[in-house]
Amino acid sequence: MTTAKQSLEKIGKKLVDDIEKGKNPEIELPVRALSNIIYDKKTCTLTMGKNIAKRYFFNVAHAKKFMQTVEVAAISKNLLEEGKHASLRDVFYMAKRTIPNTKVNIVDEQSESDKAIEDLELISENAREMLNINANKMGSVAGKVIIEDQGDRIDWSKLGSGGWSIPSNVENIKFIKANAKYIVYMEKAAVWERLHEDKFWDKHECIIMSSQGQTTRGIRRLLQRMQEELGLPVYVLTDFDPWGIYIYSVLKYGSISLAHITEKLAVSGCKFLGITADDILKYDLKKHFIKFEENDSKRLAQISGYDWFKDNKDFQRQFRMMKEFKAKAEIQAMSARGISFISEKYLPDKIKNKDWIE
Amino acid sequence: MTTAKQSLEKIGKKLVDDIEKGKNPEIELPVRALSNIIYDKKTCTLTMGKNIAKRYFFNVAHAKKFMQTVEVAAISKNLLEEGKHASLRDVFYMAKRTIPNTKVNIVDEQSESDKAIEDLELISENAREMLNINANKMGSVAGKVIIEDQGDRIDWSKLGSGGWSIPSNVENIKFIKANAKYIVYMEKAAVWERLHEDKFWDKHECIIMSSQGQTTRGIRRLLQRMQEELGLPVYVLTDFDPWGIYIYSVLKYGSISLAHITEKLAVSGCKFLGITADDILKYDLKKHFIKFEENDSKRLAQISGYDWFKDNKDFQRQFRMMKEFKAKAEIQAMSARGISFISEKYLPDKIKNKDWIE
Repeated sequence: MTTAKQSLEKIGKKLVDDIEKGKNPEIELPVRALSNIIYDKKTCTLTMGKNIAKRYFFNVAHAKKFMQTVEVAAISKNLLEEGKHASLRDVFYMAKRTIPNTKVNIVDEQSESDKAIEDLELISENAREMLNINANKMGSVAGKVIIEDQGDRIDWSKLGSGGWSIPSNVENIKFIKANAKYIVYMEKAAVWERLHEDKFWDKHECIIMSSQGQTTRGIRRLLQRMQEELGLPVYVLTDFDPWGIYIYSVLKYGSISLAHITEKLAVSGCKFLGITADDILKYDLKKHFIKFEENDSKRLAQISGYDWFKDNKDFQRQFRMMKEFKAKAEIQAMSARGISFISEKYLPDKIKNKDWIE
Repeated sequence: MTTAKQSLEKIGKKLVDDIEKGKNPEIELPVRALSNIIYDKKTCTLTMGKNIAKRYFFNVAHAKKFMQTVEVAAISKNLLEEGKHASLRDVFYMAKRTIPNTKVNIVDEQSESDKAIEDLELISENAREMLNINANKMGSVAGKVIIEDQGDRIDWSKLGSGGWSIPSNVENIKFIKANAKYIVYMEKAAVWERLHEDKFWDKHECIIMSSQGQTTRGIRRLLQRMQEELGLPVYVLTDFDPWGIYIYSVLKYGSISLAHITEKLAVSGCKFLGITADDILKYDLKKHFIKFEENDSKRLAQISGYDWFKDNKDFQRQFRMMKEFKAKAEIQAMSARGISFISEKYLPDKIKNKDWIE
C-alpha cells in the first residue's frame, strides 16, 4: 500500500521530471464542479465523474493555484515527517507567507488553502486526515468497545457520564474488542446523555454516538470504520425535519462538496431510524409540532428532488406527509411521554420491529 | 446541608401552609432585572441585589408564572426521585401539557419553562444542575487527573487522542488524584488538539481543557470545582478580540443572564493568558490581523465600559491598543511561526514569566 507520504513524493517527483525534461510542469486532477459529480446507482453514493483538468505552472490563469497546491503538499509532507497534525486554519496561517521580493502572499484567504487541500486530496488520493490535516473535533461515544489510540487502551464502557471525546482524526484508532450488535448515531448531545444515563448501550448491547449539530468528518469516518471493520449496522436518529433527513443523506450518500472523498467517508449501509411521520401519528406527537418556516419548505422541496431519493417510495411518503403537516418535530418531544420513553419504549420497539427506512 | 430535594419540599410545604391558613399562596424571589444586578467589588463578581418580589397565586398577572414555577419544581422533584437528568428542552416538553378542561397549555414556548427554571434556581438556592436539569454538553479535557464518575474510575491521561468528553452536569464527579500545577482553558478545540498531540499537559504537568465556541455551564462548573477543590490556577487562552476577552469576563465575573447563580459558576481566580496586543507585537503577528467589522468595534466599546474593566489599567491598555489596531488576531496565527510554536515557546514563556492579565 502506498503511504500518504509516498503519494506526495510521487507528485513532487513527477514535477521534477517535467522540469528536467524541459516540459511545462503540470498537475492532473478530476474536475471538481457540479457537472462532474455523479450519483452512482451501483454504489449508491455521490462520486466524481471522469472529466480531468490539467493545471500548468506556466499559465497565468493556473500559476497561483499551482503554487498553492504545491505549498500545501509541502506543508502536509512536513506534518507527516514530524508526526504532527494541523487544522485547516493552521494550514492557512502556515501557507499565508509573502513570496520573497514581492508583495504577493501565497494565500490571502482560508478558502484558497482549503481549496488547495481539497485538490491535494484528489491528486494524492488521500483524505486530508491521512495527510495529517484535521477537521473539527466534536461528539461523544459510549459502548462495550475497547480501542487502542496513541498507546492508550480505552474502554468506551468505563468513562462515566462523559464518554469518550471523539477526535477530529480517527485514522490511527485500533479496534481491540467490541460487544455490540448495532450503532445508534444521533444528532443531539442531549439525547445521547439521555440514552447514556439510561445505560441504553449496556441493556441493548450497542454503541451510542452523537455530535452536536453537524456531523464532522471524524464522526463520519469513525462510523464508516465501525460499519466495515466491526460489521455493525448504523441507525441514524434525527429530528423529523428536512435537516434531520439531510444528516442521514450525507452519511449514506455523501455530500456534494465532499464528493471527491465519498468512498472514505460514506456510511453506505446506514438506516434512517426516525423520527418518522408514522412515529408522530403512533405516539400522538402532533401537539408538539413546530410549524414550518419558509426555509423548511424550501429545503424539503430540494431534498425530495435529490436523485437518490427520487425513486425511494418510503422516503417520498415521508416527504409527502411532512409537506401535508407543514410542520416538524424534535426527538425530545418524546420526553412528553416520560423522560425515559425514548430509551425504554421508542427505540427498543423500532429496532425490534426493524422499523427503519433506507 | 439541605439537599436539592429538601429545598423543593420546603417550597411545596410553604405553599400548603399558606393554603391551610387561608392565605393567598405566595412565592418570594429576588428581582431578576438589570436594575437588581450588582457588580460586587469585594467578591469581584456579578450578583443579585436585595430587591425581593412576591408572586401570588390569586393575581391575574402572576397566576400563570406561579403555575409554571410549581410545575417545573414538580418535574425537578420527580427527576431527583428517579435519579434521572433532563435537558432544558426535555423539561419544556414535559411541562407543555394542556390543563384539563381548558385549552390552555402550562407552557407554550421553551422560553417560559427556561424562565421558570431560572426562578426555581433562585427560590430553591440550587443551580439547575443540582435540580437534575442539564445544560449543553461540550468540550474535552486531558491531564494527569483521576476522577470517579458513575462508578467508573477515569484517568484523564490515558484517553488517546480524544480525551474525556465533558458531561453537561459535573456535580457528581469526585476528584481522586491530581498531578497538575495549573489549568489552561481555551476556546478552540483545534488548539486543544494541538496541545494534546504535543503532550503539553504531560511535559508541563497541567490540565488542558477546551470548549468549541461557547463556554457551557458544565465547563464553568468543572473549572470552578478544580480551582477550589484542587487549588489550581486557571489560565484562559482566547483569540485577541472582544469576544475572546468576553469569554474570560464571563468565566471570572459571571454573566448578566446568570447573575443569580454566579457563586456556583464563577472561576474568580482565573487569569487572562492571551492572545494580548503585546504578544502580537512581540511575535510579529500583525500581518495576520483580521480587520474589525462594525460589530467588533461596538462590542469592544461595550466591554471597555463594563464596571469590572473600567478601572483595570491592564485591560484598558489592551482595549486601547485593539482600538488603534482596528483589528483582531486568532490563536492559530501562532502556527505561522511553526506548528508547535504555541506549545514549545509561546505558552511555556508566558506561564514562566507570569505574563498574564487579571
